[in-house]
Amino acid sequence: MTAPVLPIRALAGHVGAEVTVRGWVVRSRRKGKIAFLVLRDGSGLCQAVASVRDVDEATFALMDGIDQETAVEVTGTVRADPRAPGGVELGLRRLVVAGPSGGYPITPKEHGIEFLLDHRHLHLRHRRPWAILRIRHEVEQACRDFMYERDFVLIDSPILTPAACEGTSTLFETDYFGSPAYLSQSGQLYLEPAAMAHDRVYCFGPTFRAEKSKTRRHLTEFWMLEPELTWTDLDGLMALAEELVSYVVARVLDRRAEELAVLERDTARLEAVCPPFPRMSYDEAARILTAPESVAKAKAQNAPPFRPGDDLGAADETILGEAHDRPLMIHRYPADVKAFYMEPDPDDPTRALCVDVIAPEGYGEIIGGSMRIHDADLLARRIREHGLPEDAFRWYLDIRRWGGVPHGGFGMGLERVVAWICGVHHLREVIPYPRTIQRIYP
Amino acid sequence: MTAPVLPIRALAGHVGAEVTVRGWVVRSRRKGKIAFLVLRDGSGLCQAVASVRDVDEATFALMDGIDQETAVEVTGTVRADPRAPGGVELGLRRLVVAGPSGGYPITPKEHGIEFLLDHRHLHLRHRRPWAILRIRHEVEQACRDFMYERDFVLIDSPILTPAACEGTSTLFETDYFGSPAYLSQSGQLYLEPAAMAHDRVYCFGPTFRAEKSKTRRHLTEFWMLEPELTWTDLDGLMALAEELVSYVVARVLDRRAEELAVLERDTARLEAVCPPFPRMSYDEAARILTAPESVAKAKAQNAPPFRPGDDLGAADETILGEAHDRPLMIHRYPADVKAFYMEPDPDDPTRALCVDVIAPEGYGEIIGGSMRIHDADLLARRIREHGLPEDAFRWYLDIRRWGGVPHGGFGMGLERVVAWICGVHHLREVIPYPRTIQRIYP
Repeated sequence: MTAPVLPIRALAGHVGAEVTVRGWVVRSRRKGKIAFLVLRDGSGLCQAVASVRDVDEATFALMDGIDQETAVEVTGTVRADPRAPGGVELGLRRLVVAGPSGGYPITPKEHGIEFLLDHRHLHLRHRRPWAILRIRHEVEQACRDFMYERDFVLIDSPILTPAACEGTSTLFETDYFGSPAYLSQSGQLYLEPAAMAHDRVYCFGPTFRAEKSKTRRHLTEFWMLEPELTWTDLDGLMALAEELVSYVVARVLDRRAEELAVLERDTARLEAVCPPFPRMSYDEAARILTAPESVAKAKAQNAPPFRPGDDLGAADETILGEAHDRPLMIHRYPADVKAFYMEPDPDDPTRALCVDVIAPEGYGEIIGGSMRIHDADLLARRIREHGLPEDAFRWYLDIRRWGGVPHGGFGMGLERVVAWICGVHHLREVIPYPRTIQRIYP
Repeated sequence: MTAPVLPIRALAGHVGAEVTVRGWVVRSRRKGKIAFLVLRDGSGLCQAVASVRDVDEATFALMDGIDQETAVEVTGTVRADPRAPGGVELGLRRLVVAGPSGGYPITPKEHGIEFLLDHRHLHLRHRRPWAILRIRHEVEQACRDFMYERDFVLIDSPILTPAACEGTSTLFETDYFGSPAYLSQSGQLYLEPAAMAHDRVYCFGPTFRAEKSKTRRHLTEFWMLEPELTWTDLDGLMALAEELVSYVVARVLDRRAEELAVLERDTARLEAVCPPFPRMSYDEAARILTAPESVAKAKAQNAPPFRPGDDLGAADETILGEAHDRPLMIHRYPADVKAFYMEPDPDDPTRALCVDVIAPEGYGEIIGGSMRIHDADLLARRIREHGLPEDAFRWYLDIRRWGGVPHGGFGMGLERVVAWICGVHHLREVIPYPRTIQRIYP
C-alpha cells in the first residue's frame, strides 16, 4: 500500500499514519546515531528524524549532510511531539531525492539586502518572504471579497493610456503603433464613467510611477485598490475607508496568525484597528504641526519645517499618526495642494472635500481620496486654470454633461497596507519582484 | 418623514411603501394623461408612472419629454405589476433633477460599433455593456475564489520586465531609467520560482501584445489568469483546467441569470459545461482535420489547409470544437510548434506535454498550458537551440539547479472566456476600455 501524499500542514491530523511528504531540505544535522532533516513545502515546516536503526545505511548516509534545497520525497510515520512546530514530527523510513542541490547561494549566514534581491527568485523560498507574500495574498483576497460583498462591480481600467494629462515627467512612455502612450498611474478617470453605469465600481491593478525617488516608500510598479461610487459624500467615503481597512486587518489576524508570528509582528497593535478611526481636519493638523513639540520632532528628523498651506510630508504624517493607535483620517486639505478634479468644500471653497488616511506606527499615507467635481463648467474651468489640455479631457467632461451626479472615491496603496500589517520597513519586501529606480531584475 | 432611498433591485421587497430611487432616465413617453419614465441605476431598470392627477402641473410637464440620461431622484409608491421587469413599478409623486442632460449622443437609433467605442465612456451606461461587464466581474471573482479555496497563493508577477526573451516584435518597449524594458506577455516565468516556495501559486493581471493582428480575437491589452503548481503532471493540469472552467460557468449561471437574459444567451449551451471535458491527442486532431469533410469545411472558410505537424489555426479549432458540447482539451502537440520550456513527452520526445482548451461554439482557444522542463541541463540546451540569450534566463535556470521538481501550469485568457460565456462575437466588447491596434481612446 502506498502512503498518502500530504501537505505538511495536514500532518497533525494523521498522527500514527504512514505518509509521504514532498518538499525541500531547509537544513540537516546529525547527533550521534540520529539524523534530523527540517523540511519545507508550500504549507509549512516539519522535522523528519531517523535513527541509524530505522533506515538502511545508504539512507542514513544521505540524510547526513544532504544539501540545502534538495527536493525530496520523504515517507515515514507521523508522531506527536509537543515541542515541534505544528505538534508533530515524521519518523523517517524512506528518502528519495527528486531534485538535487549543491552550493545553494543563500546560506544560513547573514546576507545583504541587495544580494537577497538579486536572488529574489530563490529568496522567495525562505521563511520571511514566504510569510509576507501569504499575508499580501490574504490582503488582496480580502479587498476583493469586501468589494464583492458590497456590490462593487470590478472595472479593469486600462494600463495603456493616450494622454499625458499632468505632464510626462513621472510617466513611463511607450510607442503605441506610431503614437506615444503612457502607463497608467491611476484608474480613477476611467472608473468615473463606469460609476455612472453601475453606481459602485472598483479597480485593483498595477500602476506605474517613473519617479526618481529612492525611499523605502517608493516602488515604480505597485498595486492600487480604487473604489468609486455615486451619490455619496465625504463622510460616506471616510466610512467606507474605515470599514475596508478594519475588514482587511481583521481578516489577516483571523487567517494568517502563523505568518504574523513568523514575522514576530506585535498583533496587539493590529487588534486596535477598528472603527471609528479618528478624524481630523487639515486645519487642526496644521495647528498640531506648528506647535513647538512638533517643530522640535520634525527638526530631530531633519525634515523640512511644516508651514500652514503646505501638503503634509512623510515626517508630518508620522508625527500626526503616532499619536493614535489606529489610522488617522485627515480631511479638507487646501485645494491648491490637491488635484484639479477635487470638489471644493461648499463651506470654504479654498478647501477640497478630500481625505488622506495615515497608518499608525509611522507607515504613512495608505489611502487618498476625494469627492470629484461633478459640475461640467466648474471642472472645465479647473482644467484651464491648471493649464491642462482640454481636448484630452473631453470624454472626462462628457460624463458631467449628461446626468452628472455627486460621486467620489479613493485609492489604497496595496504595498503600504501590507508593509504596515506585516511590520516591514521597506516596500520592496512586500511585492514578489520589486521594481525600483535601481532594480528591474529578476 | 423622508422616504428611504433604495436601489431599483430592492423595490420588489417594498410593495406599498413610499421610496426614493436615484438614477438616470432611459426614456420617457406620454399617453394622454399618463406619463411614463423608464429609469436605470446600477442595479437595474424600473418604470415610474404618473397621471396628471397624481402630481402638480410642473412635475407632469417635466416628465413629458425629459431628456435621456437626466439624473433624477424620484419618490413614489412601489406597486406590484406582474408585466413590469422585476414585477413592480413606481407610482411617481415627486421628481427632482439632480444632473441635467440634453443632446445625449447615443440615441435609441442604431449606431455603428466605432461610434459606440468612441463614446465608450457613455456607452458603458447602456444595457448590453452593463450586462457584459457584470458577467466579467463575476467571472473574475469566481476565478479568484476558485484559486483561494484551493490554497493557490496570489503572486503578482511584474509588468515591467528587463529581457526581451523571445524577440521584441510583439513587445511594447519603454525606457526604464536609461535601459530598455518591456511590458510582460505572461507571468509564467515569474511564477515558477514562486511555485517552489508555495507549491501552488497564480497570477491574474493585465498582459500586453503589440501584435498587428486585426481580428475579433485580439486585443493589445488583456487579462490572463495563470496558475502554476508543483508535483503535478499533464493529467493533473487537465483536471484543474476542467474544474476551473466548469466552476466559473456554473457560478455565472447561478448568479448572473438576469445579465445572461439581457444578452439573450442560450443558457442550455452553458449548462452542458461540466466535467469530464473530452480529451484528444494532437495526433487524433490531425487525423480529423485531414479527413475530407474537414478539408472542405476549412476551404469554405477560406482558411489555409491544415498539415500534420502544423500548429492549429482558428478555423481548425472551430472545426474540432463544434463537434462537442463542452470545451475540448487537445494535448501533446509537436514540440516544434510550442514554446522552448515545455517538457517533452517521455513516450515520444517529439511531442510536448501540453494542452490547449478549445471553447465550444467557435470561440477558439481559452486555455494553453504545459508541464515545464525541470531538468536544468535539458532546459539550457533548449535555450541554446532556440537561439535565446542564456544570460537573460540565468535566474530561470537557477530554480532547476537547486531542487527542481516537476511542475506546470496554464494561462486562461479572461476576455475569451467572457466572450464565450456572454455569447459575444468580438473581444472588444468584453473589456471596459478596449485597446486594439487602432484604438487607445478613451
